[in-house]
Amino acid sequence: MRIGLYQAPSPAGDIPAGFAVIEAALAGAAETGVQMLVMPELFLPGYNAVTATMPEGWDAVLPRLRALCQTHGVALTIGLPEYTESAIYNSAYAIGAKGEMLASFRKVQLYGPREAALFTPGDQHVTFDYRGTRFGLLICYDVEFPEHMRVLTRAGAEVILVPTANMMPFLNVNVIQVPCRAMENAVTIAYANLCGSEGDLDYVGCSVIAGPDGYPLAMKGTGPGLLVADVPTDLLENGIPFATQLADYCPAKPPV
Amino acid sequence: MRIGLYQAPSPAGDIPAGFAVIEAALAGAAETGVQMLVMPELFLPGYNAVTATMPEGWDAVLPRLRALCQTHGVALTIGLPEYTESAIYNSAYAIGAKGEMLASFRKVQLYGPREAALFTPGDQHVTFDYRGTRFGLLICYDVEFPEHMRVLTRAGAEVILVPTANMMPFLNVNVIQVPCRAMENAVTIAYANLCGSEGDLDYVGCSVIAGPDGYPLAMKGTGPGLLVADVPTDLLENGIPFATQLADYCPAKPPV
Repeated sequence: MRIGLYQAPSPAGDIPAGFAVIEAALAGAAETGVQMLVMPELFLPGYNAVTATMPEGWDAVLPRLRALCQTHGVALTIGLPEYTESAIYNSAYAIGAKGEMLASFRKVQLYGPREAALFTPGDQHVTFDYRGTRFGLLICYDVEFPEHMRVLTRAGAEVILVPTANMMPFLNVNVIQVPCRAMENAVTIAYANLCGSEGDLDYVGCSVIAGPDGYPLAMKGTGPGLLVADVPTDLLENGIPFATQLADYCPAKPPV
Repeated sequence: MRIGLYQAPSPAGDIPAGFAVIEAALAGAAETGVQMLVMPELFLPGYNAVTATMPEGWDAVLPRLRALCQTHGVALTIGLPEYTESAIYNSAYAIGAKGEMLASFRKVQLYGPREAALFTPGDQHVTFDYRGTRFGLLICYDVEFPEHMRVLTRAGAEVILVPTANMMPFLNVNVIQVPCRAMENAVTIAYANLCGSEGDLDYVGCSVIAGPDGYPLAMKGTGPGLLVADVPTDLLENGIPFATQLADYCPAKPPV
């Protein structure tokens, strides 16, 4: 399984510009043999450009993304706001290479007062099977709580896809927490971040694909572009005995 | 609160040589103003030198360590085998600067067939208060399971002391997992490793004191010696919002 992520500045509300980036990313992914491409959190209309009312024409966004996946023959996981009658969710959608819907996930750990004011938190973890690999979805701040990924990997997830919009100074999430999540669960993680600035937010960039031993398989700098890695097929190939003990984790009692 | 750790080769069964190292470490810690010194896992008689029957004169080890703490006026946390009538535990003992017993902990996650053959796993997490700081104890492989430290920090632990005997090639524990545990719990961790070789084991060294933002406050190389850091007094001083949400962690349901 070859996975990829595309790091880019936020379109900042310019949906046509965002689609142009997505289409270029899918074309590049197809050329590189990527089977699953991940793009950042709320990439349309832009992390910092989500409005409380649904933008004009929003209903056409997901169908258009599905058509693009089919055109390029690449699966895509991307962050989008999800408007329902009663709430807005910070969601991630996974679309297959034939344009089929694979899964969607609503961010559980909303970050800060801005997100809390706009979004309702999700209450359900999600895994899905695609081309012989079991995937899990998380979004940005969800990764900073080890409990979420543990639930996914105990449900058999081997690759975790994470649209994110991680801003300065939190580079420590990219270089410490994401690698650790991969290692402690013996899984591969694709953490697809924004770069550049959007309003008062300066994004970290430094998107990373971390392997089951925790070390990055590939890492971006601060500029835009595609990042590709093949998911290691033997999760224990680096000598990690952890996964064999996963079923027995935390047998001890709390302090008295 | 100034904490320290002492990284050293294993005494490999030579208990008098081990006591000489401990005494020198306590003297150095006292000179440096260290209030709590951490030494490696099973430092006496040596990680790879623990026997199934209690060594001659073993009953005198803990009283002698307590006397040394009192002499030097420094608290000590150190790994020792714990012999009971029915079992041997891989334990850590915390002794105060007046020679008083503060706490002891039995390693929960035994590592590999060698430890499993010799030791019985612990079944209880431990915290203790000392000089205004709440400490937690873990040992080596326990750190690789996020659940254990989470239990301790939810019980209010601010500083986690970890005697360890981490061997090559698992440097990723020192540089990825320990920093991540500190960050995800907004605590300080002192991870005191062995260095050098003992029989067929090559220890990593690279003992680390990681701060609440995950970055190392101090890190050793591969040689022996003292490592010192002051525990940051404001756990949020680096802008970590995590701890404020700790009570709400993982509200979502597993995948269906």
